[in-house]
Amino acid sequence: MANNVKKTPNINAKGGGKKKEVKKETGLGLSYKKDENFGEWYSEVVVNSEMIEYYDISGCYILRPWTMSVWEIMQAFFDAEIKKMKIKNCYFPLFVSPGVLQREKDHIEGFAPEVAWVTKSGSSDLEIPIAIRPTSETVMYPYYSKWIRGHRDLPLKLNQWCNVVRWEFSNPTPFIRSREFLWQEGHTAFATKEEADVEVLEILELYKRIYEEYLAIPVVKGKKSELEKFAGGLYTTSVEAFIPNTGRGIQGATSHCLGQNFAKMFEINFENEKGERAMAWQNSWAYSTRTIGVMVMVHGDDKGLVLPPKVASVQVIVIPVPYKDADTKAIFDACSTTVNMLTESGFRVEADLRDNYSPGWKYSHWEMKGVPLRIEIGPKDVAKSQVRVVRRDNFAKIDIPTSTLVEEVKDILVNIHQSLFDAAKQKRDECIKVVHTWDEFVEALNQKSLILAPWCDEEDVEKDVKARTKGDMGAAKTLCSPLDQPELPEGTLCFASGKPAKKWTYWGRSY
Amino acid sequence: MANNVKKTPNINAKGGGKKKEVKKETGLGLSYKKDENFGEWYSEVVVNSEMIEYYDISGCYILRPWTMSVWEIMQAFFDAEIKKMKIKNCYFPLFVSPGVLQREKDHIEGFAPEVAWVTKSGSSDLEIPIAIRPTSETVMYPYYSKWIRGHRDLPLKLNQWCNVVRWEFSNPTPFIRSREFLWQEGHTAFATKEEADVEVLEILELYKRIYEEYLAIPVVKGKKSELEKFAGGLYTTSVEAFIPNTGRGIQGATSHCLGQNFAKMFEINFENEKGERAMAWQNSWAYSTRTIGVMVMVHGDDKGLVLPPKVASVQVIVIPVPYKDADTKAIFDACSTTVNMLTESGFRVEADLRDNYSPGWKYSHWEMKGVPLRIEIGPKDVAKSQVRVVRRDNFAKIDIPTSTLVEEVKDILVNIHQSLFDAAKQKRDECIKVVHTWDEFVEALNQKSLILAPWCDEEDVEKDVKARTKGDMGAAKTLCSPLDQPELPEGTLCFASGKPAKKWTYWGRSY
Repeated sequence: MANNVKKTPNINAKGGGKKKEVKKETGLGLSYKKDENFGEWYSEVVVNSEMIEYYDISGCYILRPWTMSVWEIMQAFFDAEIKKMKIKNCYFPLFVSPGVLQREKDHIEGFAPEVAWVTKSGSSDLEIPIAIRPTSETVMYPYYSKWIRGHRDLPLKLNQWCNVVRWEFSNPTPFIRSREFLWQEGHTAFATKEEADVEVLEILELYKRIYEEYLAIPVVKGKKSELEKFAGGLYTTSVEAFIPNTGRGIQGATSHCLGQNFAKMFEINFENEKGERAMAWQNSWAYSTRTIGVMVMVHGDDKGLVLPPKVASVQVIVIPVPYKDADTKAIFDACSTTVNMLTESGFRVEADLRDNYSPGWKYSHWEMKGVPLRIEIGPKDVAKSQVRVVRRDNFAKIDIPTSTLVEEVKDILVNIHQSLFDAAKQKRDECIKVVHTWDEFVEALNQKSLILAPWCDEEDVEKDVKARTKGDMGAAKTLCSPLDQPELPEGTLCFASGKPAKKWTYWGRSY
Repeated sequence: MANNVKKTPNINAKGGGKKKEVKKETGLGLSYKKDENFGEWYSEVVVNSEMIEYYDISGCYILRPWTMSVWEIMQAFFDAEIKKMKIKNCYFPLFVSPGVLQREKDHIEGFAPEVAWVTKSGSSDLEIPIAIRPTSETVMYPYYSKWIRGHRDLPLKLNQWCNVVRWEFSNPTPFIRSREFLWQEGHTAFATKEEADVEVLEILELYKRIYEEYLAIPVVKGKKSELEKFAGGLYTTSVEAFIPNTGRGIQGATSHCLGQNFAKMFEINFENEKGERAMAWQNSWAYSTRTIGVMVMVHGDDKGLVLPPKVASVQVIVIPVPYKDADTKAIFDACSTTVNMLTESGFRVEADLRDNYSPGWKYSHWEMKGVPLRIEIGPKDVAKSQVRVVRRDNFAKIDIPTSTLVEEVKDILVNIHQSLFDAAKQKRDECIKVVHTWDEFVEALNQKSLILAPWCDEEDVEKDVKARTKGDMGAAKTLCSPLDQPELPEGTLCFASGKPAKKWTYWGRSY
């Protein structure tokens, strides 16, 4: 990992007081601080960075270009990866008829309260109300039943990129909890449980890579409890992130093995190699625009959004810093040259050459939007054939000769990603509390910790913990049992029930 | 244009009668013929080629991977082109509140009968019903009003890829007329009409390129009549295709100048450079999955779908033709080598190595799916270091030495595209009838022609033509006035009204 920022002499020492005057308050800042009013800070950041516009229907949000570019970069990665796995894209209808929606009992129980119903077209009532998909298991599986006849029709591996609607009423929050959101949903069917099990983890690894390699966010891969698993499925795996400011876990993406439950309800049968009837094993898996909300929450600061370089549609913003008596043309030319040079080397670069804003205003503007690197070019820089580079993550400043700029920018962007990840991991890890007793658990919960506790893995015990921790802040629940289990010494007891513990499980409040 | 197929000696002469036995009826064929039962043929092709599955809600269709791959290829082209034009992607909500939807009177009159309404969530009634977007002008423009303040906020150029819902009741047809469809919708705002006018045509040219360069379909760029323009807009341009079998025109994509009508209703004002209040000029433009239906209708034949090479997710299918006593392994190896060689050269190639289907079954299967080129490899081919190549469009067969295969495949695919386009253009052009009188018009209409007629361009005259041609087949209407106008000699009269003609206009029945 390059670390060329630290070795430069002039970090935090930017050419005297003159420029500081330019950087005066311009009314662009945030009125809330992340550590003081997290909820308000979040709403303000997503709006002021031009990611989100609030919409006139509660719980619906406008995803502005600054959001979509992040989404499209993740989408390009994930779509290419699943295509390598021979998963194909399709598009099923937005609408579900009620009979089909209700076929899998546990599943519909999980989703029924949130389903939006179309009952009219124009001024006419529909003969029967039609549901809008909250997820597409019931939309798709009647056709899986039709398409899957013999073992040669398996595996069937489809994915779709689409919108889904869940008419939730509690705490709508941009990206995190919205009535409509964008996602991908993969739906696969296999001849054997073994194949399904393997795919569940392959997809989970891709989700981990989205968080870690693109969003610079550490996540835990784990398995959900029986109470928290997908309605109607066999088991659910997830990647779990954590928001230190609120002390809440957040489900980052889920990869479910549905087992044969849906296959039974939807009659997804096939003739196996021995000529016998067999039932398919199914998975479904999804990640959504929620990922972007987690990114904002984890990396954002009191100056606004902080974009990890890999998902930034503008990785470098070039800003001319003209002085009254300086050669303005030479400065603007140097800006254009810099943009061209970096663009040709594959970076996403823009120059902000607007003449109606001061450099200081532009600094604040692009800081608010979270652009990873700012390049300032003033008369001194032109004279010395150098540029000044300022990191968004730590505001470190370095003067870099034009001749080595491409290499240095490359190193710095890699470094920023790693720094963001390391900082996020350190903050999260500081919140992890290992507890063994109920008292320790309650104390840790009050401290907004991410709690790792030995558990007996019984549904009633989780229900009991929920009941005992109910309150304004929401009850505690299991987040996941990490796939990578710490050692569990024999004789370890469940923190909540006192029964023998079966596994380590993360607990906490959650989004 | 390479034309290496025609110069080969062995077209239409494939190695004796033996293989023909393999090609016996396998139950894969179509039961309807394109020229005899077009509607049934179409439904059968889209299903049997695995593009579409009919869905249990009327007017909704499942877009299978074979469809989505075509869509994604067009999308990659168009998305890259509009990004070059600095148009940015966004995502606005699926839902519209009734007050906003109804703000532009002409617009809502155009869409009201087709709007689907959500009135319930879970088991509760919503306070007010919420509409599902039939298009997003009214969804977006209240926010354009908010975002556009000064001339520096212009142009504002956004696009979204999404689903829309129009609950139509007449003749649902896969791709062509469905209650939900996928599209892109661009929405732009400018300071001047001149800029808006320029963009309308730039986008129209991209739509033409989709049809001509990707789908190998000739289209006419033209302007819609007042009666046929977009509800609430200033003027509409379109690319119009034609389906010779039904004698119907089909609107391929539209690029509208909205003028200032929506700006007035939604108060999209800005301060111009002189410090005066001014109103924005707006465009909107869209193409949809309908494009794919036009492709099926124009190129498909009695063996199934015919995919133009540029949009085929599989451009070349390699099929082993083993004989009982032949070296099967050598044949399969040759297939794999061929696939690798072509894949490395950038073609989209697959081998069908399934052992439970005969070569003949596979031929029919991939013909049904419309793959542009088939490569057959049998023992003789292995012995001679050659492969047999069969074109989907004209079934021409050529033996090609492995050593020159890459170049030849490249040429043949280009040739197939051109041949498809030429054939489609010839068929369409044969349907064009130039008429000057009402009697000629009626006769041409009865012959299912694409009618080019001098017209006075008066709304009442078009209404009158519609009324006079009403019938089971649907009334005639204007399709477009071609931008590229033939000469209109002075004194030419309108075919319908006898008044002085103002322009040449295409008329006909339409989808």
